[in-house]
Amino acid sequence: MNISFVFDVLGVIAFSISGVLSGVNKRLDIFGIFIIAFVTSVGGGTLRDIMLNLPVFWMQNMLYSYLIFVSGLLAVIFRKKLYYLKNSLFLFDTIGISLYTIIGIQKGIEAELHPLICIFLGILSACFGGVLRDILCNEIPIIFRKEIYATACLSGGIIFFVLTYFSVPPNWVVILSGAVVFTVRLSAVLFKWSLPSLYQKD
Amino acid sequence: MNISFVFDVLGVIAFSISGVLSGVNKRLDIFGIFIIAFVTSVGGGTLRDIMLNLPVFWMQNMLYSYLIFVSGLLAVIFRKKLYYLKNSLFLFDTIGISLYTIIGIQKGIEAELHPLICIFLGILSACFGGVLRDILCNEIPIIFRKEIYATACLSGGIIFFVLTYFSVPPNWVVILSGAVVFTVRLSAVLFKWSLPSLYQKD
Amino acid sequence: MNISFVFDVLGVIAFSISGVLSGVNKRLDIFGIFIIAFVTSVGGGTLRDIMLNLPVFWMQNMLYSYLIFVSGLLAVIFRKKLYYLKNSLFLFDTIGISLYTIIGIQKGIEAELHPLICIFLGILSACFGGVLRDILCNEIPIIFRKEIYATACLSGGIIFFVLTYFSVPPNWVVILSGAVVFTVRLSAVLFKWSLPSLYQKD
Repeated sequence: MNISFVFDVLGVIAFSISGVLSGVNKRLDIFGIFIIAFVTSVGGGTLRDIMLNLPVFWMQNMLYSYLIFVSGLLAVIFRKKLYYLKNSLFLFDTIGISLYTIIGIQKGIEAELHPLICIFLGILSACFGGVLRDILCNEIPIIFRKEIYATACLSGGIIFFVLTYFSVPPNWVVILSGAVVFTVRLSAVLFKWSLPSLYQKD
Repeated sequence: MNISFVFDVLGVIAFSISGVLSGVNKRLDIFGIFIIAFVTSVGGGTLRDIMLNLPVFWMQNMLYSYLIFVSGLLAVIFRKKLYYLKNSLFLFDTIGISLYTIIGIQKGIEAELHPLICIFLGILSACFGGVLRDILCNEIPIIFRKEIYATACLSGGIIFFVLTYFSVPPNWVVILSGAVVFTVRLSAVLFKWSLPSLYQKD
Repeated sequence: MNISFVFDVLGVIAFSISGVLSGVNKRLDIFGIFIIAFVTSVGGGTLRDIMLNLPVFWMQNMLYSYLIFVSGLLAVIFRKKLYYLKNSLFLFDTIGISLYTIIGIQKGIEAELHPLICIFLGILSACFGGVLRDILCNEIPIIFRKEIYATACLSGGIIFFVLTYFSVPPNWVVILSGAVVFTVRLSAVLFKWSLPSLYQKD
């Protein structure tokens, strides 16, 4: 079985749960919650496919819709339990961006684009669903604010091409660079890393 | 004459008027009002066509631009009269989503997609113009808040495929399922139906 | 050397600098600043290419990414100097929209679209990057508010087709209609022109 496929499925589930928790938090109705779950899950990949002139992935394969629906439903039912696991939203979000970064890079490579553009597609796939979620909830997207977020995807993307350059086997490239995204993001939150803001009162 | 075409034209007019009223309400200048009218009218269909890799409908056929301009202009001129008809904004919006839901479903069927994806395209065509309008006006999109909105489109979409399954003639499928969207949305507002919000203080 | 290419490069630089200044102003971190610079620079052109079913311009040609990165970096380093030149943000923005309006119109002509749609594509190319920038920063897009902005692009677009109709040589059409956009926008701010808002308390 293809490891990319496993990553894809896990990413959809992780983001769907993250979307449900955001929607519940924003006091949306049940339909709005599922829309946010859907948008968070497939938003980044949809923009990626549109920009690559590919068929939109979830419109060709019903698996994604079913996964989002079922995992969203479970998240709604067990939302209290997920809540009490204080950091669950954060954890699912972090797993999601790790997985999606790699998928985005791989699609860029298939389209024979420049490595930098591939990394950009990875960041886009990983972060744009969350950006849409935040825009729809009328907030400044979290990735533009203090926390290290897209930077984690960027690090993983660079590692991806460095490992590929040194002929590391593809499955290991995928696992290791995904782990880098996850670790950087996790460390950033645990150790309160942040990028400098350049704003100053003059 | 094709009934889909009539629906298409009426939908554009309805959404254009709804956009003008929102823009006036938001104190935008005259140019901004026309942009909002345009975005509300064609936003959903544009995203639908992009996702289906089809040419964007209003770029191939000037009829839509002229319709939006003329109906927008009339809405601007007679805006006070439309205002005094307290519920006009709501009414035009409701007509618009009924018509666009059906058009979206039909485009999905032409692209030979799964019925669920067709219904999704219907909801997208119907609701995304309004979502864009609300995002541009810096509000949480109305469809994510209390009122039953996308649910009305969903009901109509399901009826569409149920009727088709029972071999109801196409024109009747279109009229009946459009009527379902309209009736559900209207009833929801008249009888103050709403979907449950899952938010709770813990 | 093609004058369109020179315009393209200058437009990217101008918008990139304008994006950096907005990002700094919004207290974003360094990564967020570069994302805003990128989105402001290529957002309008990306939507234009997607709607025309063309390959997205900056994904095919690394020049744009490098230009945005270098000009963004210079803008970050010299941001205080740019700040003290009070109107620099405005000036770069105005140069950017002038250049992008023309490029959008030219792409529309190449796709053999109706002149009105070409003008619309010009406005979209010029303004949508800024709209995205404002949406991401959670503000009502500047073009929908008081100032004459899209109207300047509209004027330039009309002049473009009037000059073309009278067989003015292409390079002069480009320079003159670009100058119209620039002049209208500059005059609008200098002389505090604005379009009427139709809002009234009833």
